[in-house]
Amino acid sequence: MREIFEAELKQVGDDLAEMSRLVESAVNRAGQALLTADLQLAQSVIGDDHTIDALERELDERCVLLLAQQQPVATDLRVVVSALRMSATLERMGDLARHIAQVARGRYPARAIEPSLHRTFEQMHDAAVRVARRTTTLLTTRDLTVAANIERDDDLLDKLHQDTFTALLDGTWTGTPQETVDVTLVGRYYERFGDHGVSIAKRVTYLVTGDFADDRGTPAGSARASA
Amino acid sequence: MREIFEAELKQVGDDLAEMSRLVESAVNRAGQALLTADLQLAQSVIGDDHTIDALERELDERCVLLLAQQQPVATDLRVVVSALRMSATLERMGDLARHIAQVARGRYPARAIEPSLHRTFEQMHDAAVRVARRTTTLLTTRDLTVAANIERDDDLLDKLHQDTFTALLDGTWTGTPQETVDVTLVGRYYERFGDHGVSIAKRVTYLVTGDFADDRGTPAGSARASA
Repeated sequence: MREIFEAELKQVGDDLAEMSRLVESAVNRAGQALLTADLQLAQSVIGDDHTIDALERELDERCVLLLAQQQPVATDLRVVVSALRMSATLERMGDLARHIAQVARGRYPARAIEPSLHRTFEQMHDAAVRVARRTTTLLTTRDLTVAANIERDDDLLDKLHQDTFTALLDGTWTGTPQETVDVTLVGRYYERFGDHGVSIAKRVTYLVTGDFADDRGTPAGSARASA
Repeated sequence: MREIFEAELKQVGDDLAEMSRLVESAVNRAGQALLTADLQLAQSVIGDDHTIDALERELDERCVLLLAQQQPVATDLRVVVSALRMSATLERMGDLARHIAQVARGRYPARAIEPSLHRTFEQMHDAAVRVARRTTTLLTTRDLTVAANIERDDDLLDKLHQDTFTALLDGTWTGTPQETVDVTLVGRYYERFGDHGVSIAKRVTYLVTGDFADDRGTPAGSARASA
């Protein structure tokens, strides 16, 4: 019985890592599509998102079966419940990558991001790709130094997100309403992407240490826009 | 054993309904704060959000204990797993209400919404309040006609969301960048609020009928902005 459980649990872990790898690929391609106005790349992200969704459903079914057939308790139970939570988070990260790709596709052949903010979004892209790559590493290795690095990149994403609001609102912005909308939405997508990475980092940290730092105590990120 | 389980399960259902009632109150006050620039009302939403977060954590703990101690299978198990999912969704709906309140607070004493879009956001507010109220009813009664009505209000929210993009992008918009940002973000918050209501409607429908209509097949809502 225990052997079957261990094998099933390993499969759940592998599925989470696989979802995370797909998210990493999606956000990487989405950002490139956005920054270079690459229609084909944008289409590929949009077209592939169903694979992440399907993996989430499979993983959920596996977890529910595992709960029913193996009736885990204590730490084992928390691992399965956390997997249910993390699969939902990864699915959402995939959606955000898809949203970024949809903006890129919608503006093609133009670039969605107004030139003066290109560098800022390049940095957001880099940080988001690191968050995704580190999420895969964290899920595979449970190395908590990686969790700390995810939080650092999320802080950077929040800072860059604030920079976009500064650019839009400091009185010098001359972009069109479409450009303003795109910066606002894509900035929000990246900011949320970082939040989700942190949510996974905190869940894995909890599984390893038993200590759950609340990831809801901090404000919504869009402080400049909303404060 | 079964009696304890039934009592625990009832408590889970009561907690979900209670969360939903708090979300309903939050989104109702947030929208009023937004539309009338009522600082106190906005503050109350922001200050109360931790109550919803705390209820989610309690509910999660209760569900994990229930899984550990009662080891439910079949339908009972799905009810508990769904409760875990729905509590996360309700927590997120509370966050969105808080984000709306934060925009209202940030613009005080001015109104965040540019006058020409006041009526559209009034309609979004009404639809979101109905979604929240019906979610409470659905969680309490499991009456599936209510689920259908939630989907209808979500369709209306999507349509109104599109209307905001039409207003921003049809070439006649003369709002400031701040107004453009606020319309973009608040529109997105309302649109997501509706999505979450539908997600709960689909989960309850699944619990009642065993048939889960995929709630991820539809596009992201912000089609005009991203397509």
